[in-house]
Amino acid sequence: MGDPFVLGANRYGKAAVRVFKVHGTGVGGVSDLTVRVACVGDFGPVHTNGDNTPLVATDTMKNTVYALAQERLGTEIERFGRVLAAHFLEFPSITGVEVEIEERPWTAVDGHSHAFVPAGAGAERRVARVTAGSFGDRIVAGIRALLVLKTSGSSFTGFDRDRFTTLPEAEDRLLSTAITADWRYHGHPDDYTEVWRAVRSTLVDRFAAQPSRSVQEQGYLMGSAVLASQPTIAEITIGMPNRHHLPVDLTRFGLDDQGVVFQPVDQPYGDIHLTVHRA
Amino acid sequence: MGDPFVLGANRYGKAAVRVFKVHGTGVGGVSDLTVRVACVGDFGPVHTNGDNTPLVATDTMKNTVYALAQERLGTEIERFGRVLAAHFLEFPSITGVEVEIEERPWTAVDGHSHAFVPAGAGAERRVARVTAGSFGDRIVAGIRALLVLKTSGSSFTGFDRDRFTTLPEAEDRLLSTAITADWRYHGHPDDYTEVWRAVRSTLVDRFAAQPSRSVQEQGYLMGSAVLASQPTIAEITIGMPNRHHLPVDLTRFGLDDQGVVFQPVDQPYGDIHLTVHRA
Amino acid sequence: MGDPFVLGANRYGKAAVRVFKVHGTGVGGVSDLTVRVACVGDFGPVHTNGDNTPLVATDTMKNTVYALAQERLGTEIERFGRVLAAHFLEFPSITGVEVEIEERPWTAVDGHSHAFVPAGAGAERRVARVTAGSFGDRIVAGIRALLVLKTSGSSFTGFDRDRFTTLPEAEDRLLSTAITADWRYHGHPDDYTEVWRAVRSTLVDRFAAQPSRSVQEQGYLMGSAVLASQPTIAEITIGMPNRHHLPVDLTRFGLDDQGVVFQPVDQPYGDIHLTVHRA
Amino acid sequence: MGDPFVLGANRYGKAAVRVFKVHGTGVGGVSDLTVRVACVGDFGPVHTNGDNTPLVATDTMKNTVYALAQERLGTEIERFGRVLAAHFLEFPSITGVEVEIEERPWTAVDGHSHAFVPAGAGAERRVARVTAGSFGDRIVAGIRALLVLKTSGSSFTGFDRDRFTTLPEAEDRLLSTAITADWRYHGHPDDYTEVWRAVRSTLVDRFAAQPSRSVQEQGYLMGSAVLASQPTIAEITIGMPNRHHLPVDLTRFGLDDQGVVFQPVDQPYGDIHLTVHRA
Repeated sequence: MGDPFVLGANRYGKAAVRVFKVHGTGVGGVSDLTVRVACVGDFGPVHTNGDNTPLVATDTMKNTVYALAQERLGTEIERFGRVLAAHFLEFPSITGVEVEIEERPWTAVDGHSHAFVPAGAGAERRVARVTAGSFGDRIVAGIRALLVLKTSGSSFTGFDRDRFTTLPEAEDRLLSTAITADWRYHGHPDDYTEVWRAVRSTLVDRFAAQPSRSVQEQGYLMGSAVLASQPTIAEITIGMPNRHHLPVDLTRFGLDDQGVVFQPVDQPYGDIHLTVHRA
Repeated sequence: MGDPFVLGANRYGKAAVRVFKVHGTGVGGVSDLTVRVACVGDFGPVHTNGDNTPLVATDTMKNTVYALAQERLGTEIERFGRVLAAHFLEFPSITGVEVEIEERPWTAVDGHSHAFVPAGAGAERRVARVTAGSFGDRIVAGIRALLVLKTSGSSFTGFDRDRFTTLPEAEDRLLSTAITADWRYHGHPDDYTEVWRAVRSTLVDRFAAQPSRSVQEQGYLMGSAVLASQPTIAEITIGMPNRHHLPVDLTRFGLDDQGVVFQPVDQPYGDIHLTVHRA
Repeated sequence: MGDPFVLGANRYGKAAVRVFKVHGTGVGGVSDLTVRVACVGDFGPVHTNGDNTPLVATDTMKNTVYALAQERLGTEIERFGRVLAAHFLEFPSITGVEVEIEERPWTAVDGHSHAFVPAGAGAERRVARVTAGSFGDRIVAGIRALLVLKTSGSSFTGFDRDRFTTLPEAEDRLLSTAITADWRYHGHPDDYTEVWRAVRSTLVDRFAAQPSRSVQEQGYLMGSAVLASQPTIAEITIGMPNRHHLPVDLTRFGLDDQGVVFQPVDQPYGDIHLTVHRA
Repeated sequence: MGDPFVLGANRYGKAAVRVFKVHGTGVGGVSDLTVRVACVGDFGPVHTNGDNTPLVATDTMKNTVYALAQERLGTEIERFGRVLAAHFLEFPSITGVEVEIEERPWTAVDGHSHAFVPAGAGAERRVARVTAGSFGDRIVAGIRALLVLKTSGSSFTGFDRDRFTTLPEAEDRLLSTAITADWRYHGHPDDYTEVWRAVRSTLVDRFAAQPSRSVQEQGYLMGSAVLASQPTIAEITIGMPNRHHLPVDLTRFGLDDQGVVFQPVDQPYGDIHLTVHRA
């Protein structure tokens, strides 16, 4: 009687490969990346028989990232992702590859071509996810931890109420979030970095300029504006946690409450995700 | 001409809702949970028209978790997840619910019925993910950060080599990992907590007892053993990051190297995932 | 005219040196340490003239930790700290050394001599700080993140009240903390590890068994009990953050409130520190 | 016979009090602070007798921070720290107060007076520590996580060598650090925020412009430049962890090594601290 259990989906690779490259001086002078490679393929016997013949060691994957970084890594992480994905697909046992790259952006210090400071605000990161082979050929770019807040221009009224509802309606509330966005390309832009910067600007600008009646509407307005301005992008997925700032009731202390003091809380948070795509 | 953009997939809810409940004294006396609720449904107009009529406020979701915790939360987080999912599905606008619960386990201090210390080792957590409605009715239980290591009983040889391969073959290496496991039930066990404990034991025991020729084989042996011992479980997905311990070459210092001193590194790590299911 | 600025206190060293050692099998079979070395001495010209002659490179300090770990590291981190401190004091330019060691404890899996799981609950760590030379010869041992909570046996009443006070008096409240403790030896115990275990037990036991009227009183009772039972300890400093569990008012939802559901919050927290020493 | 144990140093307060204030629009429009209050005083009986009469509850301290924030919090956190310290010193039982404030800086989005993005790069924070009463009257301002790196202009040669030294000499290396700086005022500047910005600029500029022969020399040059330009500052303490970027040896893969690819590592790191004061 055979083994009644079956190996299902499996993938493996190397994660958290940190690579730093000096391209030159001034703006775009350095790259600071964390790379993750994941592969699928004919690895059944590795699991079930301890046969490592088809296996590319994850240590080899790490070495490959460093080796290819010297010749092939420029400022567009999307293109480096494609280089890596194509490389690993050449192994006969590997049928699909996903490469994720996270970049910590740096910019040259004014007037000092060899010195750099972080370019992004907060813990902001640029990301890219490139797939090839059985995963499909896709390039998804994105941003993490894009912090924005506004003290006006956000309302939240007219929502459903039941016996557990205590939230008052708000005609104008403080809205704070840390935007996550991922956009999929259906064309190849001339310069992924330029598009990335433009998307970032659009997200911040639409958050700032457009009043909204919910986080959902705010996100939809932002996503639509990105699609409207970027023809090479097919769809965009946005995550906008509602990072609550609780009003502090100062009347408890016999004070006049001017509505200007808040308690920011990390937990819990509203957790809103949406995708906008072309018709 | 209409809007050329379309709202795609969207979901929203409340995340990081922390709830602590005192059931009584002794073992199982307290629950310490972090709950995440995500809902899908007829929320198009919320995004595109700013019409909040169908929207259940995430603040209401938070309140609901606390309200239902008093009456319905016992020691089985899977059952509490079902209670919450069923509750939110009653709203006409909500068509699908996913509830994720993470438990920090506590155990009574010996001889002190009202005092408790963490039950798990390290940062270990028990988790459950319950879906209902359009997501399908599923119960997935799991564990996070189950740390194990062994100083013998793991080899890694015979893998593919190319010009970027520098890793030596290892007949017996130190293997350290932080197991993530998620198992889906196809039946309803009498006591989810008992099954959870048994699965945890099997994972640790098989890691310790079974020699392996790769992390993949180790994981497959562990997953198969879980299915073999737990008839209510349909499949199990295991993540086993290879947390490398680099041998330190003491011969550089003119010392005899006994092979007992290592440098643990967090980055990079081998990233291995696999599923085992029934035939 | 000379430079009007003066170099003041300075120190340097290597931090976050991670070292793992396999001693053997079973209990006490492995050590998993993070070491920090800090040195002071005659390093003025290093700062003011760029003269590195007296400087021991921090890379050398790292290598030294690994080299000495093979021969000199046993299960007592206090003794290894003394070995390291004595070694660095031999350099003529170094006049004072402080070595801090943090241990993640592991224990053998029952019945599997080569397999290990974390010994401590939560993120608990054993620590030691050893100083020599101009810092004075001291051995301070300690513990970090010793999580305990009790659902009864803690009151807080009779405190000072002013116009900003809203906290109600509590005859019996839930008390949760993550104990930090550091104790200084004035003698050399036969086995530092045995004393460490005994102190840990005393802290947990006194927290559990002794009712208290404030976190301060709880800490004082615990510290006194440690001194009473450990003659080699001269003084102990305890930090006990009050990790608040806010009662959730369920009467807002029309429910009978049984007082069993709480919202744990990480921020803010009461921050209590005290030292107990011998008369 | 009396109790042979004695209460030593003790302090208590509230930590991680998060307060957000809307001042208005545009630059300086919002404050985002985390406040920590620590008090010492006549609290012996609180510990030893459970007598809470002299105790100001930490919950009251939290309320006070919010209450005073409305009227007294402007853009200078140093002045708000003084307001808080003076307030708590008025309690007869409190003899010394230390207030620590950490600010996450925000700046208005160009052209949008109510919308804000983080002002600092990375996880940078502005901090202040104000003491009063028995702690002495002091104002110390500072910065955390000021990330800078340079790809040239840093050498490290001529250091001491022993049998454990393997580090090669470096005529020109990559230098990366996350600056911590704390400066003590001996005068009261017209505008603490302006001085803070000027000190930040000086630190970055001197790091970028001045070549150095060690992290120590780099720090001394930076600290001296701050004192030279800011007459109200008495002394400055700088922490400069050496965040190593390891060269990756590409010749192992048969490649020409151009010296441009590095592996950044978080652990271990060189840990350098120094103070510069006036003669």
